[in-house]
Amino acid sequence: MMSRPRIIVIGGGFAGLWAVRGLRRAAADVLLIDRSNHHVFQPLLYQVATAGLAAPSIAAPLRHMLRHQRNLTVLLGNVTEIDTAAHRVIAEGIPHPYDYLLIAAGVTHTYFGHDEWRRDASGLKTLDDALGMRARILMAFERAEAALDPAEQAAWLTFVIVGGGPTGVELAGTLAEIARHTLRGEFRHMSPASARILLVEAGPRVLPAFVESLSRYAGRALQRLGVTVHTGRAITQVRADGVSMGGERIAARTVLWAAGVQASPLGRHLGVDIDRNGRVRVRADLSIEGHPEVFVAGDLAHVSTGSGTVPGLASAAKQMGAHVARSLRARLGGGTTPPFRYRDLGQLATIGRRAAAVQLGAVRLTGVIAWWFWLTAHIFFLIGFRNRLVVLIDWASGYWTYRRNARIIVNPPPGSGADRPLAGKSGPDML
Amino acid sequence: MMSRPRIIVIGGGFAGLWAVRGLRRAAADVLLIDRSNHHVFQPLLYQVATAGLAAPSIAAPLRHMLRHQRNLTVLLGNVTEIDTAAHRVIAEGIPHPYDYLLIAAGVTHTYFGHDEWRRDASGLKTLDDALGMRARILMAFERAEAALDPAEQAAWLTFVIVGGGPTGVELAGTLAEIARHTLRGEFRHMSPASARILLVEAGPRVLPAFVESLSRYAGRALQRLGVTVHTGRAITQVRADGVSMGGERIAARTVLWAAGVQASPLGRHLGVDIDRNGRVRVRADLSIEGHPEVFVAGDLAHVSTGSGTVPGLASAAKQMGAHVARSLRARLGGGTTPPFRYRDLGQLATIGRRAAAVQLGAVRLTGVIAWWFWLTAHIFFLIGFRNRLVVLIDWASGYWTYRRNARIIVNPPPGSGADRPLAGKSGPDML
Repeated sequence: MMSRPRIIVIGGGFAGLWAVRGLRRAAADVLLIDRSNHHVFQPLLYQVATAGLAAPSIAAPLRHMLRHQRNLTVLLGNVTEIDTAAHRVIAEGIPHPYDYLLIAAGVTHTYFGHDEWRRDASGLKTLDDALGMRARILMAFERAEAALDPAEQAAWLTFVIVGGGPTGVELAGTLAEIARHTLRGEFRHMSPASARILLVEAGPRVLPAFVESLSRYAGRALQRLGVTVHTGRAITQVRADGVSMGGERIAARTVLWAAGVQASPLGRHLGVDIDRNGRVRVRADLSIEGHPEVFVAGDLAHVSTGSGTVPGLASAAKQMGAHVARSLRARLGGGTTPPFRYRDLGQLATIGRRAAAVQLGAVRLTGVIAWWFWLTAHIFFLIGFRNRLVVLIDWASGYWTYRRNARIIVNPPPGSGADRPLAGKSGPDML
Repeated sequence: MMSRPRIIVIGGGFAGLWAVRGLRRAAADVLLIDRSNHHVFQPLLYQVATAGLAAPSIAAPLRHMLRHQRNLTVLLGNVTEIDTAAHRVIAEGIPHPYDYLLIAAGVTHTYFGHDEWRRDASGLKTLDDALGMRARILMAFERAEAALDPAEQAAWLTFVIVGGGPTGVELAGTLAEIARHTLRGEFRHMSPASARILLVEAGPRVLPAFVESLSRYAGRALQRLGVTVHTGRAITQVRADGVSMGGERIAARTVLWAAGVQASPLGRHLGVDIDRNGRVRVRADLSIEGHPEVFVAGDLAHVSTGSGTVPGLASAAKQMGAHVARSLRARLGGGTTPPFRYRDLGQLATIGRRAAAVQLGAVRLTGVIAWWFWLTAHIFFLIGFRNRLVVLIDWASGYWTYRRNARIIVNPPPGSGADRPLAGKSGPDML
């Protein structure tokens, strides 16, 4: 027992989870370390943020999912140091030795050097982020209702979404539907339908990772929903009361950040080459230069293919995690590690109800068919039978009624509207 | 329009909500003010706290529930002042005049003059409380797993529940099931089943508001589940590392507070007689002395009946709210307000799976029949079709598998285990 090799996996996202599962029959002791007690189905985080789903519907406790894997220990904790020379990882002040290491710590959002924007621009990478974003969005409508000054009310009804990737597009489309449909008839001093939803993308088109025809489709679909799409415009300032795009100032109380990712700082501990987003440049087998026993997978890995780099998608992370597990099993058996080959399984984005963009190799789908495809794929890949059923119920009820079933403000974070005084100087008569 | 009477209702709990609904056809403008954007089905809060249900399953957005009531405005805000002489309420710095006022602001928990215990003893009155308690409970098992020192581990595996009313009994029974069943096989360095669950009640028996035979039944049922019940013992100190009961010190990292309620401080603004829990002594029609236009209902009201006072139950709060609405409609029509008559609809408490205590007039039920009764009643009274369905699914899945479907730690509050360092001085080898 004491001589079994020790494998540490940092991160219980798609890459880490698929690696751990692939090691279930390996003759090794595996330690999975994660900062949170649950795996999150990230593709649906925006639905928690927009009050369509409850947080537990897209999360599963890691311990529970992996309880039958007898060679595995799960540890909740923060990794603060990786010492590749001494072959150990420090988590919560405690050193953990390893023979093999997989770092799958993912990415967080970056504000392009403007960390002071964080307070006023919610990101969306964790469930806490999603609940914070939900509180901001719901509070903005409450504050618009309570606002005395028309300009103030308009600022509470202006939502700026920064970043035109799938998350930005999905947030913008959903917000437009919430404003036009979900909240209809619920307010007395303003019309939620008058809300302005702005999607700002610095590049020339939304969904930049998709083919151009799908970008054009998504842009049109967003405009039909009432979203104003700005492409080729960069946000140059974010403050509590609005954003600047070059010289133009937009009064907006709610800024949702779906731009720029920055790799986990753990990548910098490795002493190897990183790209400008902090992602670790790995070798063909996903190990790092000089340390064949250390692997990096998922969004944290910069993997070159013939034509570019492997994208930061759930399907890519799963493939990398599974590949590392296969390589480790081969190594433990005395074999060698094959190179990683990325299989492009396509990408999807929804744009509100009954509209989506799907790109699968040469196949492109739009409209209702794409939307059904998106829905089926997400239900299929969602982990846990109960979650699938509850998500289906929420979606079915939402589809017929436009209701959003998680419209509760809990634990609003500092910086969300909820911690600022509700009203201004003078007094309205609410009746 | 301008001359329609103005009615303000403070609080969207059972009393406030039933009053507002009862006023839907009243020739008056109604303003409902609540600190949160949702009504909470309080009888199931303990299920959110013990990770059995997602928060949105037991909450409904007030605006949405009441959107068709055209004479109603909903305002999210904190009431800081009630001026009964000037007939106005101050919320978020803004004065709101009224002709009639209903205060249904409820109660919070009290630490019997030891507010310093709040940090280490979670209460359970709001969804934020429930999510905080959930984080504490789940973190305690995580910390026990990571603990190096056996005494430290034992302290993380010791749970003290203070207060033997329905909430305390329900928390203790559920925690025992979580430790013995839900978490089985998920940890490597300790057995969750070794957790000690202590229920401490200062009075002579648990469920003191029930008849004695049901108290005895509940005590036996708890002991069968592995809960240690201490009656006639008062907690004399709470600290981060344990509690004292008189001279006895118990090392326990998790203290759940289900004792003592303290009425909302708003009751003190009225200049009328309050009882020692801060509840407002009302007249027979639920109005207050000297102000026939001001009513108090729900847990905040001290209502004398022939034999005692009306208990702080959801059914009593609904009756009071509905009564105030009827009285106001009568007054608006030039009539007089009848006295409130409390109709005892009984009380219920569950003690884990397939065991409950039900008291309905002369009828007492225990065991499986009582549990089915409890389950049916709660599903029936839960608001919203979608919530009923999702709660049923969660309960059915939990019943067959012992799983708890909301086992995620989100936004742990300061003072919960989640914000303290995970491990001690020396280093374990987790593998």
